[in-house]
This record gives sequence, C-alpha cells and structure tokens, in this order.
Amino acid sequence: MELIRSFTQLVQALQRRGVRRRVAVVCPNDAHTEYVVQRSLREGTARFLLVTDAAHREPSVRLRAAAPDGVQVYETSTPEEAAVRAVALVRAGEADVLMKGLINTDSLLRAVLNKEEGLLPPGGVLSHLAVMQLPVYPKLLFCSDVAVIPRPTLAQFRAVVGADVSVCRRLGVGCPRVALVHCSEKVSDKFPHTLDYVRLKEDAAQGRFGEVYMDGPMDAKTACDAHSGEVKGLCSPVVGNADLLVFPNIEAGNVFYKALTLFGGADTACMLTGTTAPVVVPSRADSGDSKYYSLALACYVKEGGG
Amino acid sequence: MELIRSFTQLVQALQRRGVRRRVAVVCPNDAHTEYVVQRSLREGTARFLLVTDAAHREPSVRLRAAAPDGVQVYETSTPEEAAVRAVALVRAGEADVLMKGLINTDSLLRAVLNKEEGLLPPGGVLSHLAVMQLPVYPKLLFCSDVAVIPRPTLAQFRAVVGADVSVCRRLGVGCPRVALVHCSEKVSDKFPHTLDYVRLKEDAAQGRFGEVYMDGPMDAKTACDAHSGEVKGLCSPVVGNADLLVFPNIEAGNVFYKALTLFGGADTACMLTGTTAPVVVPSRADSGDSKYYSLALACYVKEGGG
Repeated sequence: MELIRSFTQLVQALQRRGVRRRVAVVCPNDAHTEYVVQRSLREGTARFLLVTDAAHREPSVRLRAAAPDGVQVYETSTPEEAAVRAVALVRAGEADVLMKGLINTDSLLRAVLNKEEGLLPPGGVLSHLAVMQLPVYPKLLFCSDVAVIPRPTLAQFRAVVGADVSVCRRLGVGCPRVALVHCSEKVSDKFPHTLDYVRLKEDAAQGRFGEVYMDGPMDAKTACDAHSGEVKGLCSPVVGNADLLVFPNIEAGNVFYKALTLFGGADTACMLTGTTAPVVVPSRADSGDSKYYSLALACYVKEGGG
Repeated sequence: MELIRSFTQLVQALQRRGVRRRVAVVCPNDAHTEYVVQRSLREGTARFLLVTDAAHREPSVRLRAAAPDGVQVYETSTPEEAAVRAVALVRAGEADVLMKGLINTDSLLRAVLNKEEGLLPPGGVLSHLAVMQLPVYPKLLFCSDVAVIPRPTLAQFRAVVGADVSVCRRLGVGCPRVALVHCSEKVSDKFPHTLDYVRLKEDAAQGRFGEVYMDGPMDAKTACDAHSGEVKGLCSPVVGNADLLVFPNIEAGNVFYKALTLFGGADTACMLTGTTAPVVVPSRADSGDSKYYSLALACYVKEGGG
C-alpha cells in the first residue's frame, strides 16, 4: 500500500488507480460544488450522480451537457427528497460516496441517520475525520472529532479510533501513531476522558485496533513535536510523531482545526466515518481545494473494487 | 496610552517608561531563568530579587556579581521556603512581580494561594492569560484560559474576562473585542458554556467590563478571520477582529495555544491573573524569548508607579 503524505499525492494515487468512484451529490446548486464536480471530472477522479431539487435543475443539466459520460442527473422536488434519493442510490450500490451540496447539514444528516433507510449500521457511531496537510509537518495529520460528537463516551472513542485507523491504513499508514490529546500528561478523575484514555490504551495493547502505537494523555504539541517531548522527558513512538490526534471534546478539536486552517497554512480534507459509505459534508468556510481534497479522500478510502 | 501591537514594541515601551519593576524570582537555578534575568538587566527592563534555596546559590551569586545594582540575593534553605519568602517580598511591597524559576509549579502555587500569606485576594479567581503574536494577525491576540481553570463557571468567566480586559487596556486596547469561543454560533443547553456566554454578553451590555465589544458563541476562525465571518453571513465588531479569545474549557484553550506555537509561528507571553501582583510561571517547553516576553508583559501591566 502506497504511503500517502500529501493531497497532491492522494489525487495522483487516485488517478493512477483508475477507478472512478460514483459520487451521489445532494443539491449541486452552488459554485463550490460545481467547482468540485468539474475538477473531479477534468482530473478523472470521480463520476457523479447529481440529485437536484426542482428549484435548481440548471447547474446539473449544464454539468451533464459538458460531460455526459461522467454525469447522471436525478430529479426530485425538494432538497429533503434529494437527500433521501441520494442515500437510496448509495444503499442500492449505484453510488459509492455521498456528498453534500447546497442543502443544510441537518436535512442531509436526517436522511443519512434514518434507521431503516439510512447509511449508519445498527450500533454505528457517526463521527468526523479531518485530515490536515501542514507546511511544517512531514506527513498528513488525522484529527477527530472536530465537528460531530460533543463529548465522546468510551464507546464512541473506541468507534472513532477504529474508524480513523482504518482510514489511516487505507492511506498507507500501516501502524498509525495515535495521540490521545489532553492539556497535560496527567491521568485524573477530574478529567474523565483521561480515564477513558487509559482504557483505550488497554484496548490497543490487546489488539482491538490492530497494529497501532497509542499514547496519552499528552498535549497537542508534545504529540507533534519531538523537542517538546524531550523537554518534558517523554519518549514513545507517538511523542513528536503522531499520525492521529484524538481530541477529548468538540471544542478542543474544532479549535485545533480552525487555528491551523487560519494561522498554520493547513490544507484539509474531511469526511464522516461510521457510515456504510464515506460521506462528504463540506463546511461553508472551507476553500475550494479543501472541498476537492475531501472528495478525493472519500473516493480513495472507499473499500472494494479498487 | 500607547497601543502595543508586538512584543518588540512592548519591550521598547517598557524601556521608554524607564520604571524597572522589581521581580522576585523563586529558585533562579536554571539556564532559561538566568537568560531572562541577564537579558532583562541588559535591556534595562527589570531589577531582581533572587530567592535561592541552599542547594543552588551559585547562579544567583554570579548574577549579582555581574550586576550588583540590579540584583539582590535572598537565601533560604528549600524551594518551598524560597516560594514563601518571595511571596512575602511581594506582599511587603518590596517586589512588584513574582516569577518562577526551577521549582515545581505546585509548590509555587501553594505559596501564591495560601489564604493568609498568599497573593490571591478573598474571592479572587486565579487564571492564566496567554498573549500571542502571530505572523498573519495584525495585532496581539489574548487568550484565556489555556492552562489553569478546567471548566470555568459563570463566576470564573466573569473574573477571567474582567482581568483580561484590564490587561488589554494596559496594552492600549481601549475597547477590547472579546470573542466567546465555541465550535459554532449556536446557543444550546447541550453546551452549558454557551448559556454562560449569553449571560456574559448581558453583563457586557450593562457595562460590567467597561467599554468592550463582546460576541459569541463563535468559532475561533470566525473570531479572527473576516472572510470566514462573511461566508457565514456574520458581522459584528468582534467577527474577524478579536483581541481576546475566551475558551470554554482548558483542553480547547490549550490546544489553540499549542497548535499556534508549534504550527503557526506564534511568539507568546503568559502570566497569571487574579493575583494582587502579576505572576509569571514559564512552562518547560516555552522558548527563551517567550519567557522573556512573559516577564516584560508582567512588568508592563503591573499597576502603579508607572
């Protein structure tokens, strides 16, 4: 498995693999989504099933006219109906990946989370995975959860780590280095997530997550900077060399993500995990690049046939 | 009041003011503390009362020999005793600022927090203020709490905001723009701190914090990036232009601080607030510059006589 260290490399690997995943897009009615569709068609990284609502057919028709072999259009009447239809296409095996266009996230997630007709398996945990490419870090940095789960329970932490390390492996990180983030190295019942971290490390030692290195609690700098670890006298395969940062709560995850996209020159790709197929839910403030990389990530990690 | 926009300007303003604050240093036994003392003496920004323990007299004696007019040495037997003695010097008005050397933080804080003989007034709230200078932000960014209070209560939020806006004003920010950080703009009882934020904004509107702009909940990027605010249709005097970020919990604050010192090229200065005199508690992983700027900040914001 090729080790993917950058988004450029990710796109190239996707092109080389030559399997164009079929992406069901819910309401591709905005300029950003159109950009992602066009660029994916041009770069040969995906095909599209565009599911439109009645009020916004025109962009989809235009996209199909420009690339009839890469685009199919499905007409529905409302955004909610478009979401249900797109999910049904994924469930039927006609699409591999689900992507959000101009529809509010709650409406899309209602269709995804529907118990009978959705994409979350029984007992599944929906989570958010952010992948960051930083100018001063030698590899991609995986982060959860910066957007979906407010305060992970132990069961949720387990599901999140399991899903994330699977994605790491799909990107060639055979033995992911997982840092359990806190503000210090102390385990304390004042901070219940640090007690969960102890359990997660036991799980890891017993092989629950396959081959991984896992360490923590540790702060985000110690996780990514060997020098900080040395100053603190810390040494482990994770310290200074993390692949995956697991955050204790959504505010901490979100702040990390926002700080680095704004001040750290980070490029990002994000997807939802826990579902039976990758789901891409671009955020309004994401750049066009970020939305394109998100779709490339989802297509690349989709299991089967490739 | 001069508006301070960078640490270089802070040091210059301190030099121009010509009042050398008297800094009581607890156990100045390590190379980093010695560096800060020497640089402060050379640049004329402070004088020192070095409180040594019996095992480590030598560095203090050397520093006094090199600068007899800027250094006094106080001998005690143990680090704990040194902490108590240094706090007593501040209480007696013989020192203006307290600084930690090579003593563990818990021992220092025990002396600072002592009910009868410490530096925290009755009902006072000890908090941590981080000031960050970022290559891509046009002014200093103030952040609390990244290191001391795990989950601020409403009363603690009030105290923290009050202390921080005072420091902002000492640095010439007449009407600080305060962003109450969350992962979104939604107020929800699922996130109790967002309810506190509503109360804080009411407080602000009633003048509790003097002249301030206060807004939130908002995410860290919206607070510091006008474009992100525009994309979301948000507009306020705070959006994209925050002076002070108030974090909902210590993990979020700590992650922001660590992310930007590691990946954002941030220089930093930190101090404790809520005490009767500024207290500087450098962290092991701080750079020498950061420790020097921290002391300069504490000296500059110390009230009275300057």
